[in-house]
Amino acid sequence: MIDRLLFGGDYNPEQWPDSVVEEDLCLMAQAGVTLLTVGVFSWALLEPKEECYRFDWLDQLLDRLHGAGICVDLATPTAAPPQWFSRAYPASLPVDVHGHRLAAGSRLTWCPSSPDYRRAAVRIAGELAERYSRHPAVRMWHVGNELGCKNMLCYCETSAAAFRAWLQERYSTLEALNEAWGTVVWSQTYGSWEEVQPPLATASWSMPAQELDFRRFSSDAVLEGFKAERDAIRQHSDLPVTTNFMAASFKDADYFRWARELDVVSNDHYLRAEDPDNHVDLALAADLSRGLGGGAPWILMEHSTSAVSWQPRNLAKGPGELRRNSLAHVARGADAVCFFQWRASVVGPEKFHSAMLQHAGTDTRVWREVCELGRDIGRLAPVAGTRVEAEVAMLWDYEAWWALELDGRPSRDIAFLSLVREWYAALWRLGITVDLVHPSADLSGYRMVVAPSLYLTADDLTDRLSDFVAGGGTAVVGFFSGISDENDRVRTGGYPGAFRDLLGVRVEEFHPHAEGAKVVLDDGAEGRIWSEHLHLAGASTVTAYAEGFLAGQPAITRHAHGEGCAWYLSTLPTPARLAATLAEAAREAGVRPPVVRSSEQLEIVRRTGAGGSYLFLINHGNREESVQVAGTDLLTGVRHNGELILPAGAVSVVRVQQN
Amino acid sequence: MIDRLLFGGDYNPEQWPDSVVEEDLCLMAQAGVTLLTVGVFSWALLEPKEECYRFDWLDQLLDRLHGAGICVDLATPTAAPPQWFSRAYPASLPVDVHGHRLAAGSRLTWCPSSPDYRRAAVRIAGELAERYSRHPAVRMWHVGNELGCKNMLCYCETSAAAFRAWLQERYSTLEALNEAWGTVVWSQTYGSWEEVQPPLATASWSMPAQELDFRRFSSDAVLEGFKAERDAIRQHSDLPVTTNFMAASFKDADYFRWARELDVVSNDHYLRAEDPDNHVDLALAADLSRGLGGGAPWILMEHSTSAVSWQPRNLAKGPGELRRNSLAHVARGADAVCFFQWRASVVGPEKFHSAMLQHAGTDTRVWREVCELGRDIGRLAPVAGTRVEAEVAMLWDYEAWWALELDGRPSRDIAFLSLVREWYAALWRLGITVDLVHPSADLSGYRMVVAPSLYLTADDLTDRLSDFVAGGGTAVVGFFSGISDENDRVRTGGYPGAFRDLLGVRVEEFHPHAEGAKVVLDDGAEGRIWSEHLHLAGASTVTAYAEGFLAGQPAITRHAHGEGCAWYLSTLPTPARLAATLAEAAREAGVRPPVVRSSEQLEIVRRTGAGGSYLFLINHGNREESVQVAGTDLLTGVRHNGELILPAGAVSVVRVQQN
Amino acid sequence: MIDRLLFGGDYNPEQWPDSVVEEDLCLMAQAGVTLLTVGVFSWALLEPKEECYRFDWLDQLLDRLHGAGICVDLATPTAAPPQWFSRAYPASLPVDVHGHRLAAGSRLTWCPSSPDYRRAAVRIAGELAERYSRHPAVRMWHVGNELGCKNMLCYCETSAAAFRAWLQERYSTLEALNEAWGTVVWSQTYGSWEEVQPPLATASWSMPAQELDFRRFSSDAVLEGFKAERDAIRQHSDLPVTTNFMAASFKDADYFRWARELDVVSNDHYLRAEDPDNHVDLALAADLSRGLGGGAPWILMEHSTSAVSWQPRNLAKGPGELRRNSLAHVARGADAVCFFQWRASVVGPEKFHSAMLQHAGTDTRVWREVCELGRDIGRLAPVAGTRVEAEVAMLWDYEAWWALELDGRPSRDIAFLSLVREWYAALWRLGITVDLVHPSADLSGYRMVVAPSLYLTADDLTDRLSDFVAGGGTAVVGFFSGISDENDRVRTGGYPGAFRDLLGVRVEEFHPHAEGAKVVLDDGAEGRIWSEHLHLAGASTVTAYAEGFLAGQPAITRHAHGEGCAWYLSTLPTPARLAATLAEAAREAGVRPPVVRSSEQLEIVRRTGAGGSYLFLINHGNREESVQVAGTDLLTGVRHNGELILPAGAVSVVRVQQN
Repeated sequence: MIDRLLFGGDYNPEQWPDSVVEEDLCLMAQAGVTLLTVGVFSWALLEPKEECYRFDWLDQLLDRLHGAGICVDLATPTAAPPQWFSRAYPASLPVDVHGHRLAAGSRLTWCPSSPDYRRAAVRIAGELAERYSRHPAVRMWHVGNELGCKNMLCYCETSAAAFRAWLQERYSTLEALNEAWGTVVWSQTYGSWEEVQPPLATASWSMPAQELDFRRFSSDAVLEGFKAERDAIRQHSDLPVTTNFMAASFKDADYFRWARELDVVSNDHYLRAEDPDNHVDLALAADLSRGLGGGAPWILMEHSTSAVSWQPRNLAKGPGELRRNSLAHVARGADAVCFFQWRASVVGPEKFHSAMLQHAGTDTRVWREVCELGRDIGRLAPVAGTRVEAEVAMLWDYEAWWALELDGRPSRDIAFLSLVREWYAALWRLGITVDLVHPSADLSGYRMVVAPSLYLTADDLTDRLSDFVAGGGTAVVGFFSGISDENDRVRTGGYPGAFRDLLGVRVEEFHPHAEGAKVVLDDGAEGRIWSEHLHLAGASTVTAYAEGFLAGQPAITRHAHGEGCAWYLSTLPTPARLAATLAEAAREAGVRPPVVRSSEQLEIVRRTGAGGSYLFLINHGNREESVQVAGTDLLTGVRHNGELILPAGAVSVVRVQQN
Repeated sequence: MIDRLLFGGDYNPEQWPDSVVEEDLCLMAQAGVTLLTVGVFSWALLEPKEECYRFDWLDQLLDRLHGAGICVDLATPTAAPPQWFSRAYPASLPVDVHGHRLAAGSRLTWCPSSPDYRRAAVRIAGELAERYSRHPAVRMWHVGNELGCKNMLCYCETSAAAFRAWLQERYSTLEALNEAWGTVVWSQTYGSWEEVQPPLATASWSMPAQELDFRRFSSDAVLEGFKAERDAIRQHSDLPVTTNFMAASFKDADYFRWARELDVVSNDHYLRAEDPDNHVDLALAADLSRGLGGGAPWILMEHSTSAVSWQPRNLAKGPGELRRNSLAHVARGADAVCFFQWRASVVGPEKFHSAMLQHAGTDTRVWREVCELGRDIGRLAPVAGTRVEAEVAMLWDYEAWWALELDGRPSRDIAFLSLVREWYAALWRLGITVDLVHPSADLSGYRMVVAPSLYLTADDLTDRLSDFVAGGGTAVVGFFSGISDENDRVRTGGYPGAFRDLLGVRVEEFHPHAEGAKVVLDDGAEGRIWSEHLHLAGASTVTAYAEGFLAGQPAITRHAHGEGCAWYLSTLPTPARLAATLAEAAREAGVRPPVVRSSEQLEIVRRTGAGGSYLFLINHGNREESVQVAGTDLLTGVRHNGELILPAGAVSVVRVQQN
Repeated sequence: MIDRLLFGGDYNPEQWPDSVVEEDLCLMAQAGVTLLTVGVFSWALLEPKEECYRFDWLDQLLDRLHGAGICVDLATPTAAPPQWFSRAYPASLPVDVHGHRLAAGSRLTWCPSSPDYRRAAVRIAGELAERYSRHPAVRMWHVGNELGCKNMLCYCETSAAAFRAWLQERYSTLEALNEAWGTVVWSQTYGSWEEVQPPLATASWSMPAQELDFRRFSSDAVLEGFKAERDAIRQHSDLPVTTNFMAASFKDADYFRWARELDVVSNDHYLRAEDPDNHVDLALAADLSRGLGGGAPWILMEHSTSAVSWQPRNLAKGPGELRRNSLAHVARGADAVCFFQWRASVVGPEKFHSAMLQHAGTDTRVWREVCELGRDIGRLAPVAGTRVEAEVAMLWDYEAWWALELDGRPSRDIAFLSLVREWYAALWRLGITVDLVHPSADLSGYRMVVAPSLYLTADDLTDRLSDFVAGGGTAVVGFFSGISDENDRVRTGGYPGAFRDLLGVRVEEFHPHAEGAKVVLDDGAEGRIWSEHLHLAGASTVTAYAEGFLAGQPAITRHAHGEGCAWYLSTLPTPARLAATLAEAAREAGVRPPVVRSSEQLEIVRRTGAGGSYLFLINHGNREESVQVAGTDLLTGVRHNGELILPAGAVSVVRVQQN
């Protein structure tokens, strides 16, 4: 949409006197700011009493920003309703799993199904859109903020009624509901719709399929709210509408369903501060952001210049880390790099969250790095609109995540995100770029598809994955995949029910490990967390268990299927072994990293468009690395033809010579 | 009652289509199933609306099972009331210690004191009994399921009123209540009965004796529910009535009081999966099951063929483990071996709980082991009705457990179950068979009585244990025993007040250890958790403390008393030292294991009856062991006369030659 | 007020029959008891029904105590309202942060803002004062007990209304409140006072300044209750009124505000049993007790002869520990040594709390040590009324503690009490006596002022501390000090905003450490928890960081300012390094310990008065130590002139020869 990359952040001038805003505009120019998100927490200011609006301050602000040449992403302020709202509509406050209504006094204090909240949110969104749809500063709409972050699962009576309506839509009859939920198991058969409730705290476990449907419903309910605000905006404006996701860290939203309703995907990403490999997790989040939008460029709506304020220990970033982080997002498809927030607050819960402009002001390392980054972002204009190339898809399904972690699973060590992170990290270290896609996605463009512990699968995936392999693709499937259907009903006859034929194996029993226990494999590596009693049914053994009563039984298998091949891992090998297996499968599949690297700490991703192909090279290690490449570095203007030396911590973006 | 051992499990055909039930009957025959528990979670099916009954499916099921030669243990379905019930009687839902009412949607969603629940439960129990009391398949009644497991302690208004009535029965006057509870201590003296409540969450600690009485009341309240259902059944049937306990893992029920109301004791036992010595804990549970029934044969109503579904990590059993587990229960008095459940569910919270028939079907190790076990159980028919021989009693009192763990105790490291397990494990390793009996039991048949940390004791135990020793018995008492009376009032003048004279010691002060701290004893062993400043008052020192300011003071003492001898342990010695002390006391007492063993991993128990004497030999180790024995192995038919070689993991049951 | 030290404890004869009270009086004489606190939990006895009083038992008790020559500290019984009160006034029960009302059944079951409770408390206090103000036994009044211990923060509607009134008093206008709380940040601007609530559980974080004000309000609300009872007493009596604090362990009360309303400070101190250096924590608590009273002698109202009953593991004291503990309190300004309690209870939640008279009776080590201590206390009469000498002040501010630990702080490893303990322990090991004073205190009498992590500071402290240093004093400031103002608004422009000029440094960014991570300093020591990116602005570097990207940057600095000097520590050095820095600063400041010692385990404190100067020497080590001193040991009567040999664990109190 725009022929450059955008740079900026959240701007909350309402926290500051006018003189500070004046100073801000100067400093923004200095930093190269081109995009600001405005109004995220301004409801009380915009509508100090119900249906009494005050837009004067926002009129002036938008005029000033436009005067300064800054584009505005105008937010509906609906993440945080004002105090007057909560007091007037106390039933709009969310209720927790124990049935306790929360108090006002923070953000996200609303029940997603509240009609009062919906009406008020749509109204203020419509007012804003009507007033500002033609304001020249406004370039995009931003609905709410991190939707559902703390209020996704509401158990109030209103939510209960909405849940029932959603279930009636899904199942039509109570018989179908009872069948889907398996209510017969503990004599929980419903005789009337009125009996159906959210899975409130009860004496023992709730029905797992009820929990699963409640998550589906809740994600849909928040999405409905988004759509209502979006539609109110569209009555007045045809600018793109977005909302900021928290992809790869937030469990409660089915972002694949949500993304279909957005004009452009936005994501907020914050490093896990105490994880020394948190740049790998960043890459995962970026790849998922891209995947949610079907590969299109996306917006990095929030990240931090340095420390955040909500982790147990909020570590500051080291020199150059901000640049590596930001450009890694761009490498993986971001066309905008934004921060929370422009200027650090001095009051409120987030006052120790870093910002583009820190408490200590401009004579700081962070400010200098922000200004340098602003210049870098400017130099990367040619990259705008290009797309990332990937030959490997990893399947990601929020419903499978939810189902995997329901009560009564075989081991608490089986956690979706940690397993996905293990597999993703192995591929990252191999230098293989991965698309994170929904299982329903078209797989035909990939050479390899991997599925780590995709517990719940729709029936059609069985054939689709089989066809993919038969047609020459490679599939690599991890244990506890394809176990249950969409209602969390176990597929019997040997695990993994959905993929047994494709994989050419039959698992008769899971063997979760005791805490921390490992099993030795016959190649000397070890398996963690989980083993299985597995029989070959067409596959051949790649690696076998070497101890315990499974000694000699297959642990990792390979099955030729049609033109392709399907691998199965019945344990979680140690990282090096996991990477080796994936490397072997990728090699067979013909997957190759973009460039030969001298170190696995050298992150390399390619973005390509009509105008050219750009190699992003990011050295996360503490040694100088070199790469063979021919082209021009966009950041420095230097031409390379042969060896490019990349110092520790450095980044290059090379426009590759077309052969 | 029956001249063979029974074999089977819970059967829930309502989860399956008719074709599966047909297959089940064939497979049950193959496995040797002779007993099934039916109807545990069928209330919604049997009574889909209040007082509208549907028995047709159960009529057919019982007919088919009878046709297949299978005995039925028919359950009242009262563990899980239907949704319609909770909706019609919301006051029947239990309330937690914070005063929050739980929601419906699971099992055990009922207040034990609810008159609505009681009426409905008695009604459905009576309906079942009336209809099926003469059905030839039905051989036993099974009330509810794991009674009180999640709903024992209810704090609702109905429970409060019932608690007050129970207290009026116990104390007659408010003055007696105030005296018993020590309400004067924090100015909590009651002036009227209406002021008395359950120990709801309050600002600081509740009165300990109030907590204790609330546990007594709650156990009694659930027991009253059992009795009401039992009596409704007895109006129509004189078949035995049982309910399944969770002995040695469940704290909330006073099973010694409960057992008096059952016709036969049943127990559910599940391994603590991550404990490598969980077979010792199994033995403890089995011995307690036998003790609850006064030594009579009992029913192993539930255990698992492999993994359960509710532990943090649900480990599968290894080859042969199922057989060792099942036959260890038989060795210790079980006359029936049953599982939860026949066929693994594919929906609901327990779908990953192992079953006789796993998800993977019949071509599985588990199925083959189940079938082999069924044959073994058949071969052990002569054992039915015989009794276990034990020369040692260990005292177990639920009230003492409750009292020991009330607020304000000297150390959180003092926990009833873990201390009992330590002492039991020492005896198990010595090969000494133990009866677990209530302190009020007749002790005259034993050579030795042990009491690890029996904190609260009735006044009469002082004389009874003294008489036992005076008459030639040996008593071994652990620290923090005999401290308080039945109202948890400390006995003054030197600990342990109840046993000071018997033991010939006077303890002036407890010395709980810092976390993990140990004290060296003068024989080089160590004491854990606890020491005491102890003076001899007739006893002699066996072992003294060797460090700290207690250095040189007695740690373990021995006191000759009448014809017998009383030992006292003022610390918890390391396991080997604890076993050595118990071995020495047992040797003096004339206690001998049934057979000389080559390894402490060789579990040996004797069952004896009119028809003969049977040695159960179970090799839990990983080496072949040998025993000198003369007799015939019931499982193989092989005659032994001298050395019996028992491979690692194997089991023999030898009918011993009578001399 | 009295020319001797007092000795005694809490006495609860209502728990015992009359014969025991008779015995008590004999044993009290034997132990040298001179002071008893009576009536703490007697409300139900004194007022068994509303406004029906029974004083006969207390009349007799006071007469008997007076006859025995014992002074009485007469308590209002308001810590624990009777059951009838809670039942008659259920709205007086406190409500927790989730909005749940607690039940009666314990102590401290009252909302501090309840008018019903206030009325009843004032009434019983007035009745007692009227009846006993002229009783010759009564020498002091004791309001309630450990006020606010479990009920300080109440969130009920009554508290909410009182909170609003308190806020109106503080801020006058809603605009000022919105400004102070920074409500604009998350759109929480209040439009009417009715919207303002306590910080009840809400969806995300509450406003930090709201939390802070709620703590201020709550502390004030409990204090108001104290004042109301005090004033009721003063209508009838001019005897001193006190209440027992829990200084240095209790966070919720602003004891500096409270102390102004007391006639004499009283403190309860209990060892942290599992901390091997708990005598250092004792010293801290004693110094704070003295500081709260502006240096005046204070009363050790409660401590324990041995174990307490409420810690996870309640360790007994070793031989001599009781004496060292008690005399260490006296050394630091206590003029009375009292225990909870005289006779160990046999019922109730505190029955395993040690007492002067243990369960085991008089033939115990504890009893002998109590009697010896009673004699010691008698011999220390000359010490009464003297004052402790200190050249160093450490700043302690409850508001700063509260603010430091609000949500959203940079690291959870930053905790006020643990940081203060680190600094205090370093000074203790150096043998430097410290006054713990409020930041508003007159600092002119000190040579050195230290402030470890004094996060929130009033504006005037900036100048006052600067003036102190300019006038020749030494200041030592720890990281995260002076960050925010009284409304928790961050001071910008470089940390630490309040002290930047004084310290001659500018911090651009905090660098909290990952869990357990340390940073090496250039003198080989290490910094824990926290580092900073710090620039010199007048100061010079004492120690620099030696690794990471801060390598070479200053870590500890020193700034000459006027006649004095200001040190800054931007990390928490390992204990030895922290002590060395403080020692160096103290040496420069001219601070000297009272006497040269042979070991840092030898605690030495001086009390001085008109009549003389007394050195308390306490050997906490396990070796004999020696000191050069000339004077007479009050405990033994021995004259020393030169070397005094103090065996391991021993105590001397030497009246020093005046030169």
